[in-house]
Amino acid sequence: MMRHKSIRKYQDRVPSKQTIHAIVRAGQQAPFASQLYSVILSRNRSKHAYRAPLLFTICVDIHKLELIMARRRWKLRTNDLTLLMFGIEDALLMAENMVIAGESLGLGSCLLGYAMYRAENIAKIYHLPPRVFPIVQLVMGYPDEDPPPRPRYPLEYTLFEGRYPELTDEAVAEAMRRMDEGYLEQDYYKKLHAKIKLESARKEEFSYDDYSWTEHICRKWGQWYPDADELLLQLERRGFRITGRSK
Amino acid sequence: MMRHKSIRKYQDRVPSKQTIHAIVRAGQQAPFASQLYSVILSRNRSKHAYRAPLLFTICVDIHKLELIMARRRWKLRTNDLTLLMFGIEDALLMAENMVIAGESLGLGSCLLGYAMYRAENIAKIYHLPPRVFPIVQLVMGYPDEDPPPRPRYPLEYTLFEGRYPELTDEAVAEAMRRMDEGYLEQDYYKKLHAKIKLESARKEEFSYDDYSWTEHICRKWGQWYPDADELLLQLERRGFRITGRSK
Repeated sequence: MMRHKSIRKYQDRVPSKQTIHAIVRAGQQAPFASQLYSVILSRNRSKHAYRAPLLFTICVDIHKLELIMARRRWKLRTNDLTLLMFGIEDALLMAENMVIAGESLGLGSCLLGYAMYRAENIAKIYHLPPRVFPIVQLVMGYPDEDPPPRPRYPLEYTLFEGRYPELTDEAVAEAMRRMDEGYLEQDYYKKLHAKIKLESARKEEFSYDDYSWTEHICRKWGQWYPDADELLLQLERRGFRITGRSK
Repeated sequence: MMRHKSIRKYQDRVPSKQTIHAIVRAGQQAPFASQLYSVILSRNRSKHAYRAPLLFTICVDIHKLELIMARRRWKLRTNDLTLLMFGIEDALLMAENMVIAGESLGLGSCLLGYAMYRAENIAKIYHLPPRVFPIVQLVMGYPDEDPPPRPRYPLEYTLFEGRYPELTDEAVAEAMRRMDEGYLEQDYYKKLHAKIKLESARKEEFSYDDYSWTEHICRKWGQWYPDADELLLQLERRGFRITGRSK
C-alpha cells in the first residue's frame, strides 16, 4: 500500500475476466452504508484516459435501492443530500478496495475525479437510469511505467491526537515544503505537462523548475468552479435534489 | 480483503504508536484530489462505540488548504459543494486504506457513518476549527470476535458491462434473496439486536427469524431523515454552504 502510485501508461495486455471479477468482488467487500453503488465497465480502450484497457465508472446508485424498497412496498423517504453523502462514501470505499485489489494482482490504476462534472454525458453513454450518479472513474490495466510513490503531507499535518491543534506557520510551511520539494524531485508536473493556466491578471512567474504541488492546488481551488450551479444541475438531471426535502 | 468484516468486540490490548502511525500513513498513500482530510485520534476507550481502544474521526478539511493558499497569497474560490464532494472522496479513500492496513496488521475496525449528523458535537469535543467537517468515524483495535464476512449483492447486481441494464424482477429478487438469506444464516440482526422500530402505522410483523437486510434498509431509508435541513445546518455550522456560491 505504501508503494501505491497512479499509473498513466498501460501495456496492451488485457486483464482476464477472472481478474476483473476478483477486483470488483474485493470492492464489494468494503464496509458500506447500504451498497449504494454500481460499477459500469468499459473495454473501449481508445476512448479511455491514458488508453487504459479498463475503465470503471463508479456510480452512486439509489435506483437499485428503490427497486428493492418497491418490492417490499416501501417508499424512499430520506432526503437526497443524506443519500448522496452516504452513496459517495459507499462508492469511494469500494473504489479504494478496487485500487488495492488491483495492485495485489499486478494492475495499476488512476482515479479520475471529474466524472461528477460530466455526469449527464456519462449517463448517456452508459444508459444510466435516473437516480444513478457517476461519481468517479477508475482506469486500470497492467502498468507500462513504474513511477515512485508520490509525496504526502507529514504525518503531523494529518493525524492529531485528542484535539485539533493550532497549526503554526512552521507546520504549514513544513507541509508545503515536503509536498513541493517531493514533487519537484520527481519532475512530476514537468513530465505530465500539467501546469494550470492563470485565469486572472496574475502574471505567470513559474517554470517547471519551481511549479509544484502547492502552486498547482492554489491554481485549481483558487480559480475553478466558483459557482455550485453546474454541479447542482448535473445532480438534478440525474434525479438528485440535494438542497431540500426529498420527493 | 475478501475476509473483511466489521468488528464490534475488542481486546484490551492497545495498539502501539508504530502500528497507529503505519495505519494512518497507509491511509495517506491512497489516491486523492488534494489531501482534503485530517484524522483525529482518541484513546478515550470508555467513550468509544464498542469500547474500542482507538477512535479515528476522519474529517473533510478545507482549513488546512486555506492556510496553504494564504501563504501563497491565493484565496479559495471553488464552491463549497465541489470541495465537500472531493473532500468526502479523499476522506473515504483514506478511511478504506486504514481499514485494510489495520487488517494487515491484525486489527479489526468498524466504520461509523453517522458522524456527519453529530458534526457540531464532535467539533466541540476535538476543537475543530471552521471548515473542518467530521464525515466518518472508525473504531479500531485487536478483535475479540471472529464473525464471518457478511453477504454482498451478487456481482451481476453490481458490475455492468458497457451499459446499465434493465434490471428484471428476477435480478432484484435474487439480490434480495442473497442478502436476506445470507444475513439470516448468520443471525446477524438477532445477535446485534438491531431491529429498527416502525414509526408509522405499519404493524410489526417481523421477528428476528425473518427480519433481515432488505427489511432493515427499507426501515432506514423509508423512515429516517425526510428533510435535508438538519444536515445542511450541521454543514453550515462547520462553515460549508453547499447550496450556492462560495464566499
